[in-house]
Amino acid sequence: MNTYINNLNWRYATKKFDTSKKISNEELDNILEATALSASSYGLQPYKILVIDNPEIREKLKPAAWGQSQITDASHLLIFANQTTFGDELVDDYLTNVSETRAIPAEGLKGYGDFMKSKLATLTDTQKSVWTAKQAYIALGNLLSAAADLKIDTCPMEGFDPKQFNEILGLNDKELNAAVVVTLGHRSDEDETQHYKKVRKSKENLITHI
Amino acid sequence: MNTYINNLNWRYATKKFDTSKKISNEELDNILEATALSASSYGLQPYKILVIDNPEIREKLKPAAWGQSQITDASHLLIFANQTTFGDELVDDYLTNVSETRAIPAEGLKGYGDFMKSKLATLTDTQKSVWTAKQAYIALGNLLSAAADLKIDTCPMEGFDPKQFNEILGLNDKELNAAVVVTLGHRSDEDETQHYKKVRKSKENLITHI
Repeated sequence: MNTYINNLNWRYATKKFDTSKKISNEELDNILEATALSASSYGLQPYKILVIDNPEIREKLKPAAWGQSQITDASHLLIFANQTTFGDELVDDYLTNVSETRAIPAEGLKGYGDFMKSKLATLTDTQKSVWTAKQAYIALGNLLSAAADLKIDTCPMEGFDPKQFNEILGLNDKELNAAVVVTLGHRSDEDETQHYKKVRKSKENLITHI
Repeated sequence: MNTYINNLNWRYATKKFDTSKKISNEELDNILEATALSASSYGLQPYKILVIDNPEIREKLKPAAWGQSQITDASHLLIFANQTTFGDELVDDYLTNVSETRAIPAEGLKGYGDFMKSKLATLTDTQKSVWTAKQAYIALGNLLSAAADLKIDTCPMEGFDPKQFNEILGLNDKELNAAVVVTLGHRSDEDETQHYKKVRKSKENLITHI
């Protein structure tokens, strides 16, 4: 546990990455494997993780993120894209996966599937999109800790225009929305903010016992 | 990293807790310390973590969570309560904290503070509430991994009526909303679901390279 907490104290929202230090494929795979194990409501994982490998697309995205240098300078750029809507197929695909993974007949899952479908059917499209984005944020929280475990720096970013991102990445046709961005890599020695003391609410301000 | 991933594979949404196995105060403190280190937009942490110690209140909350046994049987019940709205004081309180923590004069932070305030002022109350809830979900993702690091079981829960929770916990007056619940403790030997194979989307279904 000390190591876990030390890693979180070590991490910070990296503003300036060292452009010469790349993350290895193995490190990226590990981080994605950990992120894929994130919890989500009903286990449905209603989002995609986009890994933007194409440098030209990263250049195009940069002005849509107020020109922030991390978009192009970080070793890797990831985007959590939540489903803006969905129908019963979200549950059906999940149940097929359950059936195959656990080698159990699909018929036995029908009741549970109908329960999930009935709950999700009460949501409006706006509510669906908020709910899927929240699930992506659980994965984001896990990803940041997983990266810190490998001493890989991250900067989670909400400072971008989702509309422009969605258009550049062709997400609208896929009923996806750029929910949140994470840049990964290694901090530059020149990033002074790494030396700043971490600011967090005091226990008294954050936690209430009832 | 292998340990981190192994911990995530070990964890599962625990449906049945062992009522005789409690989490120690030290373990709870460690989990809360890790959670308090979670990233959030601008570092504002616009939520509270409620630790429900009172067994009578846990009994009252149970029917508002469709009678799910974890609410009363788990060693601990935590609720992330997001701010339903906020004004400039959210930023001002943060800047005071920055100024004190880093021993820098408040005047030097005014420009950055005004920038944050101008961004947040564009949000409607509904958007503010969605945004603060998302920040809580980052912390949730981190908490689940932190607990797994200590081999403490968790069940994140959205299956409850926020309106009833808010009323029972007196959150409305405080402009707070029960966003998501986490129960913590140790799995019961009788919980068959601990033996089920974990179901997650395949890499191909979850991750897209662009």
